[in-house]
Amino acid sequence: MALATTTTSTSLDFGPAVALSCRECGARYELGPSFACIECFGPLEIAYDFGRVTREQISQGPANIWRYRSLLPVPVDVASKPNTEPGWTRLVKAGNLARELGLRSLHVKDDSGNPTHSFKDRVVAIAVEAARNFGFHTLSCSSTGNLAGAVTSAAARTGLDACVFIPADLEQGKIVMASVYGGKLIGIDGTYDDVNRFCSELIGDELGDKWGFVNVNLRPYYAEGSKTLAYEIVEQLGWRIPEQIVIPVASGSQLTKIDKAFKELIALGLVEDTPYKIFGAQAEGCSPVSAAYKAGHDVIRPVKPDTIAKSLAIGNPADGPYVLDIARRTGGGVEDVTDPEIVEAIHLLARTEGIFAETAGGVTVGVLRKLVESGRIDPDAETVVLNTGDGLKTLDAVSDQARPTAVIRPSLDAFRAVVA
Amino acid sequence: MALATTTTSTSLDFGPAVALSCRECGARYELGPSFACIECFGPLEIAYDFGRVTREQISQGPANIWRYRSLLPVPVDVASKPNTEPGWTRLVKAGNLARELGLRSLHVKDDSGNPTHSFKDRVVAIAVEAARNFGFHTLSCSSTGNLAGAVTSAAARTGLDACVFIPADLEQGKIVMASVYGGKLIGIDGTYDDVNRFCSELIGDELGDKWGFVNVNLRPYYAEGSKTLAYEIVEQLGWRIPEQIVIPVASGSQLTKIDKAFKELIALGLVEDTPYKIFGAQAEGCSPVSAAYKAGHDVIRPVKPDTIAKSLAIGNPADGPYVLDIARRTGGGVEDVTDPEIVEAIHLLARTEGIFAETAGGVTVGVLRKLVESGRIDPDAETVVLNTGDGLKTLDAVSDQARPTAVIRPSLDAFRAVVA
Ligand SMILES: Cc1ncc(COP(=O)(O)O)c(C=O)c1O
Ligand SMILES: Cc1ncc(COP(=O)(O)O)c(C=O)c1O
Ligand SMILES: [Zn+2]
Ligand SMILES: [Zn+2]
Repeated sequence: MALATTTTSTSLDFGPAVALSCRECGARYELGPSFACIECFGPLEIAYDFGRVTREQISQGPANIWRYRSLLPVPVDVASKPNTEPGWTRLVKAGNLARELGLRSLHVKDDSGNPTHSFKDRVVAIAVEAARNFGFHTLSCSSTGNLAGAVTSAAARTGLDACVFIPADLEQGKIVMASVYGGKLIGIDGTYDDVNRFCSELIGDELGDKWGFVNVNLRPYYAEGSKTLAYEIVEQLGWRIPEQIVIPVASGSQLTKIDKAFKELIALGLVEDTPYKIFGAQAEGCSPVSAAYKAGHDVIRPVKPDTIAKSLAIGNPADGPYVLDIARRTGGGVEDVTDPEIVEAIHLLARTEGIFAETAGGVTVGVLRKLVESGRIDPDAETVVLNTGDGLKTLDAVSDQARPTAVIRPSLDAFRAVVA
Repeated sequence: MALATTTTSTSLDFGPAVALSCRECGARYELGPSFACIECFGPLEIAYDFGRVTREQISQGPANIWRYRSLLPVPVDVASKPNTEPGWTRLVKAGNLARELGLRSLHVKDDSGNPTHSFKDRVVAIAVEAARNFGFHTLSCSSTGNLAGAVTSAAARTGLDACVFIPADLEQGKIVMASVYGGKLIGIDGTYDDVNRFCSELIGDELGDKWGFVNVNLRPYYAEGSKTLAYEIVEQLGWRIPEQIVIPVASGSQLTKIDKAFKELIALGLVEDTPYKIFGAQAEGCSPVSAAYKAGHDVIRPVKPDTIAKSLAIGNPADGPYVLDIARRTGGGVEDVTDPEIVEAIHLLARTEGIFAETAGGVTVGVLRKLVESGRIDPDAETVVLNTGDGLKTLDAVSDQARPTAVIRPSLDAFRAVVA
C-alpha cells in the first residue's frame, strides 16, 4: 500500500491544496502519490488553504470545471495546458418528469455531455494534473467501464501512456471506447472487485512508484473532481444548494465528495447554509450500501454483483461507510431498484425529458421515483437527480424495447397501415 | 410541394427574421412553413433585419446556441422555454494531431458533446421554435440516423409528438437512440434518398399542413441552426474566422450555412473581413459533390451510396450545387476518402486528441489529412476540422481493432506475460 511519507519535492504545484489529511484521524502529510494514513490506514483527503474565493471570480472562468480551479488541487494556469475540459454540463429543468412523479421542482444534472460521456472525465482531469506533478508517465485505473474510457482518452490527449483494467464482461460500447484511444486495455476474468484487488497488488509489487492509478495511488486528487458536480449544480441553480439530491453509489466516492463540496461552499460564504438531504442510489443486484443502511449497520458487507448496472457494480465499496454517515447525518437515505425498474426508469427519463441515460441514470431516476412513492422525498422541496452516464454505452438494457415502430416499403398505403 | 404563400398569422415571433427569400431569384415571402419559391422552385432562406448586435451582448448569453438568438429565427425569450440547449461545444486545440499532420495551428470543433451527440441538436432546436410558431404538434424528418435521434429527443422534451423516418439498415446505436424517447420510428426499406422522396410525398399528400418535417417544410428555419457552429468557432478563436475549415457534406446544408454565418458576422462588423477557404468532405462511397467538383461540373449527378459513413450517405444532395459554388469561390475544394481511410482517421483522431468520432468525423479528418498531403491545405494557416458526430453510434467501424490488448486472470505472471 502506498502509505503517506514526508518526502516531497518542493516544485509541486497543486494550487490551493496544501496537504493530505486523514479522514479518520486527521493526521496531515505532504502532498504526494499516497492514499492511506500511516497511523490508522484511513483514506487521505486533500486539505486546502482557499484564501478568498468569490462568485464573480468563478463566473468569469471558462465553461468547464476549471472555472472552479481555486477550489481544486490544480495549478492556477491549469486551463492553459492540454487536458479534456469536462464539466459545465446541462442542468435540465425537468418539468415533464416532475409532473409525472408529482414533484414541484426537479432538475436533472446531465453529465452525458462530457467528452467521454460520463462524469468520470471530471475526476480524471484532476488526476492528470497530479500525474504531471508527480512525474508519472503512465495513467492507469481499475474500472467498471466509464473510467477506463475517460483515462485512455485523457492520456491520449495529454501525451501520457495508458494501461487500464476492466472486468472482461463489460458492454461493447465501453470496451470499444476504452481501447480506441490507443492505450493498453487489460480485461480481467473476474468482477470489478477482483480487478481492483489486482491493481492494489500491482501497486504494492512494483508499479506504485511508476504508474499513476487514478483511483488508487492518485485517489485523493482524483476524488476531488466529483466536487465540481456539486459546484455546478449550486451555481446553475443561482447559487443555491438543492434541498434534496439523488446520487449513484458505486465506490461511494462521488456522493462523499458532493457532500464535501456543499460544505466547502458554505464555509467559504459562497452559498447560504441551508439544509440538504443526500440520497444514495444503488442497483438491487449490487446494493451493499443500501442493505447496510436499511439494516442500520455501520459496516458494509461485501456482495458479489449481479445487475445490468455494471458501472455501479462494486461489491466492496471503499467509501461505503462515509455514504452511510452522510445519508444519516443529512436526513437522506440509501435505496435500491431492480433491473426491470432500472430499464423502466431509463425509458421514463427518455420519454419525459429527451435524455438517454445509461443504466446508472436508470438507477438514480428509479430510486427517485421509489423515494417519492414511499414519501421519503418531499414533493415540494427542490430536488436534483444525477445522470452520470450515457445510454449509448448500455444499449442492451433497452434494445428489446427501443426498436422501430415498423419497417415498411416507401408507400402511402404501407404507411397508413402502421400509423393510423 | 409546400410552396410559399402570402397568408400568415401576425402572431408569429421569429425574432430578427423578417421574411423568406429565394436563394435563386431573390423573391421574398412572409415567414411560413414553406421551403420552395413559387417563381422558380429555388430553396427559401431566412432573411433578417438584425439591427445592432455586439460581441458583449453575445458573450453575456448562456453557454449554448441561444447566446446567438439575435442572429437566429427565434423569439428573444427563447432560452426561457423548454428546449434541448445544444451548442457551446468544445473547440479543442489539437496540438498532437497538428504535429502528426504537419500543421502549425489546428482546432477540432467537437460537436459530440451535444445532447444527442451530434450537431443535429442545433438545427432541431431551431425547428422546434418554428413548429411552435406554426402550431404543428408532430415533429418529423427523413434522417440518415443522427437527425432522427435529435428530433425524437427534442419532441419528448418539448411535449411534441414525433414520427421519424430512416433507412432500415442503420447502425444499432442510431436505431435505439431514435426510438428510446418514445416517438414513432419508421424504418424504410431503401436508401436515405428513398426515405426523403417518400417524406416529400407524405407532405404533398396530406401531412404538410399537419406535421413539421424539420428538414423539409421547416428546412429554412432548421438549416439556420448550422450557423451556430460557425459563430461558436469564431468566438472561441477570439473573434477570428479560421483561414481554412473542413466540413462534412451530406445534403450540403451545414457547409452552406457555415459560409452564410461567416458572411453575416463580417457584414455586422463582429469580425474582421479576412479570407477563408471552405473544404467539403465526403466518403468515396457517396461522393456526388466531390465527383462534380473534381470534374468541374455545376450539376450533381445522383449516386447510390455504399459507405460505412451512413450519416453522410445522401446520394442526391439538395444543397450540393451551393457547396460547389462556395468551395470554388473561397478557393477551397471538395475531397473524398475511402472507407479504410475513414477508419484510419477515426483512430488517428482518437489516438492523438482523445476524441472518439463517428464515421462522419473520420471523413473530415481523413479528408484533412489528404488535403495536407496533396498540398491543398496551407500548413501555416489556421485550420479547423469538424467532428459532428459520436463514435459510440458507429461502433462497428472500429470494433475489429478496438479490443482489449489481452484478457487475463488477475495474476502478476499473467500480467507480465502481456505487458512487457
Ligand atoms: C456512470 C457512473 N455513475 C456513477 C458512478 C459512481 O461512482 P463512485 O465510485 O464515485 O460511487 C460510476 C462509477 O464508475 C459510474 O460509472
Ligand atoms: C454527423 C453528421 N455530420 C454531418 C452531416 C451533414 O449534414 P448536411 O446534410 O447538412 O450536409 C450529417 C447529416 O446527417 C451528420 O449526421
Ligand atoms: Zn489516520
Ligand atoms: Zn425563386
